[in-house]
Amino acid sequence: MTAPKTKAAGAAKAAPVSPLAPASFPDLPAIAGVRAAIGRAGLYRHERPDLALFAFAPETRAAGVFTTNAVGSAPTDWCKQALKGTGAAAGLLVNAGCANSFTGAAGDAAAKKTASTAAALIGAKPEAMTLASTGVIGVVLDHEKVTAALPAIAASLAPVHWPDAARAIMTTDTFPKGAGATAKIDGVKVSISGIAKGSGMIAPDMATMLAFVFTDAAIAPAALKAMLKEETDASFNAITVDGDRSTNDCVLLYATHQAKHAPVKTVADPRLADFRKALKKVLVDLAIQIVRDGEGATKLVAVKVKGAKSDASAKIIARTICESPLVKTAIAGEDANWGRIVMAVGRSDQPVVREKISVKFGPHWAAKNGAVSKTYDEGAMSAYMKRSELEITVDVGAGDGEALMHTCDLTKRYVEINGDYRS
Amino acid sequence: MTAPKTKAAGAAKAAPVSPLAPASFPDLPAIAGVRAAIGRAGLYRHERPDLALFAFAPETRAAGVFTTNAVGSAPTDWCKQALKGTGAAAGLLVNAGCANSFTGAAGDAAAKKTASTAAALIGAKPEAMTLASTGVIGVVLDHEKVTAALPAIAASLAPVHWPDAARAIMTTDTFPKGAGATAKIDGVKVSISGIAKGSGMIAPDMATMLAFVFTDAAIAPAALKAMLKEETDASFNAITVDGDRSTNDCVLLYATHQAKHAPVKTVADPRLADFRKALKKVLVDLAIQIVRDGEGATKLVAVKVKGAKSDASAKIIARTICESPLVKTAIAGEDANWGRIVMAVGRSDQPVVREKISVKFGPHWAAKNGAVSKTYDEGAMSAYMKRSELEITVDVGAGDGEALMHTCDLTKRYVEINGDYRS
Repeated sequence: MTAPKTKAAGAAKAAPVSPLAPASFPDLPAIAGVRAAIGRAGLYRHERPDLALFAFAPETRAAGVFTTNAVGSAPTDWCKQALKGTGAAAGLLVNAGCANSFTGAAGDAAAKKTASTAAALIGAKPEAMTLASTGVIGVVLDHEKVTAALPAIAASLAPVHWPDAARAIMTTDTFPKGAGATAKIDGVKVSISGIAKGSGMIAPDMATMLAFVFTDAAIAPAALKAMLKEETDASFNAITVDGDRSTNDCVLLYATHQAKHAPVKTVADPRLADFRKALKKVLVDLAIQIVRDGEGATKLVAVKVKGAKSDASAKIIARTICESPLVKTAIAGEDANWGRIVMAVGRSDQPVVREKISVKFGPHWAAKNGAVSKTYDEGAMSAYMKRSELEITVDVGAGDGEALMHTCDLTKRYVEINGDYRS
Repeated sequence: MTAPKTKAAGAAKAAPVSPLAPASFPDLPAIAGVRAAIGRAGLYRHERPDLALFAFAPETRAAGVFTTNAVGSAPTDWCKQALKGTGAAAGLLVNAGCANSFTGAAGDAAAKKTASTAAALIGAKPEAMTLASTGVIGVVLDHEKVTAALPAIAASLAPVHWPDAARAIMTTDTFPKGAGATAKIDGVKVSISGIAKGSGMIAPDMATMLAFVFTDAAIAPAALKAMLKEETDASFNAITVDGDRSTNDCVLLYATHQAKHAPVKTVADPRLADFRKALKKVLVDLAIQIVRDGEGATKLVAVKVKGAKSDASAKIIARTICESPLVKTAIAGEDANWGRIVMAVGRSDQPVVREKISVKFGPHWAAKNGAVSKTYDEGAMSAYMKRSELEITVDVGAGDGEALMHTCDLTKRYVEINGDYRS
């Protein structure tokens, strides 16, 4: 896999790397049965890779979790259809620069043309191709640019160079995102490597969140799907940058079946225990990297809600806190404004006991049992709020339900990025 | 009613008046049976009026609509209790500078003390006093400061000077808000005058929205309540600045029964038709003034949703559009970003028909039947988006449901205002 020469890997205006970015791209394990190459279709005016093509071993099976946004998009529609049958996946084609969403029949036709061309080049049937697109919505994908670029890209397929692949799928991301882990199934070592993109939204791009996770394990599609669904809830569905949800979001999990253990057929198979833990670790890691790249973010915030009527109720409360513009601007201002957190708890419309509500920033109590904490220490609180990673714990006193959600602060930079005129 | 000398009528840092403010405070009709006076308890460090006391004719009946925020506050709890019985209201005491919310038993006791003192001064029972507070939450109202200031204020009760009263209840509002109308009941002229405050939220104040509406009409409390509930849904519940909802929000409607028509007992009385129209006009006017004073707002936006499965569904869609940070930042950037509107429609989780979704900015179609409009004209669209008042119409193609909601844009100034440290 060779990266073409590029002036900038990210968006047109090279945005400064997020202050919350990890120090470096991690070392990810190679996945037997996965080859990739990147290239440029020219969907952006400036020079940067905008295509990533993956080709999989013939035994590969896949599962996906897709946006619940009712509008959806041509590529997510395509993928849902492609993965409906046996779950066999021969390849994946990802483009940045155009979401091909809200494009009607013309968008569907463009998706089909790129899938057919890519499939032919890797010797597969079109319906075994999976697709993902990110970028401007309402514009039909220029399939001719894509199909013209594909032969050269297909010719350079090679073992994946993860940082390049992660970079090729970026839109407004300020750093490439990857995570990996190993696990054992039946005593046989298997590997998981994943890349993701997403950072909020950008004019006119959608904040599409894409994640592609690959493993050499031999796991049947139904089991892949069940695990992916559950672990996505605890990872990608437990983060929020701005509450907006793209038409193109998807998480795809590919298992190449190259590892030498006896295949796993069902999600109930106890041999999956270690793999599930590793998968969860990879998905949570990728999800938190997306928050770290939240547009304009300067703080990574973990919000833990306890004492809710149920876990589902706790998640609604956590989301309400994480998406409150007032909470998020207070955090940007390094203000331990527990009053706004209590307000958000109240407006979540969940069962809470006002006289038992308590709020803690890191180890520091701000409110305890329905009033300001007697141990409230402004100096300690101010010092804590200056950190770049914060933990807010809220007990709502109504039961045993718990939830953890990650978000970032809301800064002037977010408004600046998203208020820029489209053209 | 005499205004004390003040350095600044608004908050500590005199914020520039919103560019969307009306040219001047309207001429409001006097309401027979309502006297008022303003004064200063010193709940703010800087000199400004922070108390408004109203005294009503003995025949006065009232009804209220209160925040649905589960946390609530001592004054809203007090009012709900006070208006539970006959609906008789002798007075209203409003303070700015302290919300007396999330303050437990101490807050309830403080509310009771201010109510008792004010009631004694106007010769009424404590339970006939209504209360409203706005300001910092989590701090118990300093009732001694309030009760110390009340005798002088009570001594200056006089026919209401509306601009002064509207100014005394401001927190971060950049202009005082008032609206009035007249109507006929049984051929007798009656008047309605209302004042309101609210502008989003401010550190550390809640964005409390308070509205007090007074009429000389003779209308029974049950009828007042039914009308107020319905018209609040179409006015104050059809605006949003940031989606956050205060613990102290309330709308109170007082009828002094001084007009000479035969009393109206039920909301079904056809004699109310003209009054209802006038009441709605006043409430909608006040509500839109609050959006005009949205923190950092530079655009007033009316979002009309049509073609939804039901009116309730249309309202959810309209709210999702109005509260989307991406839609609001695009509007701040004068960007007709219909893609973000479609995204918001999609994530509202309401029934929509993707192939029929259409979006119009003013008279200009951006999207038509599920794709970009063939008549899309970038020049005309750009010119339209420069206006300070915008109308966005969205047809979701699923039925006959309609809703109208008002919001404002999301600017860097909003982040600046709300990111300021509390102290």
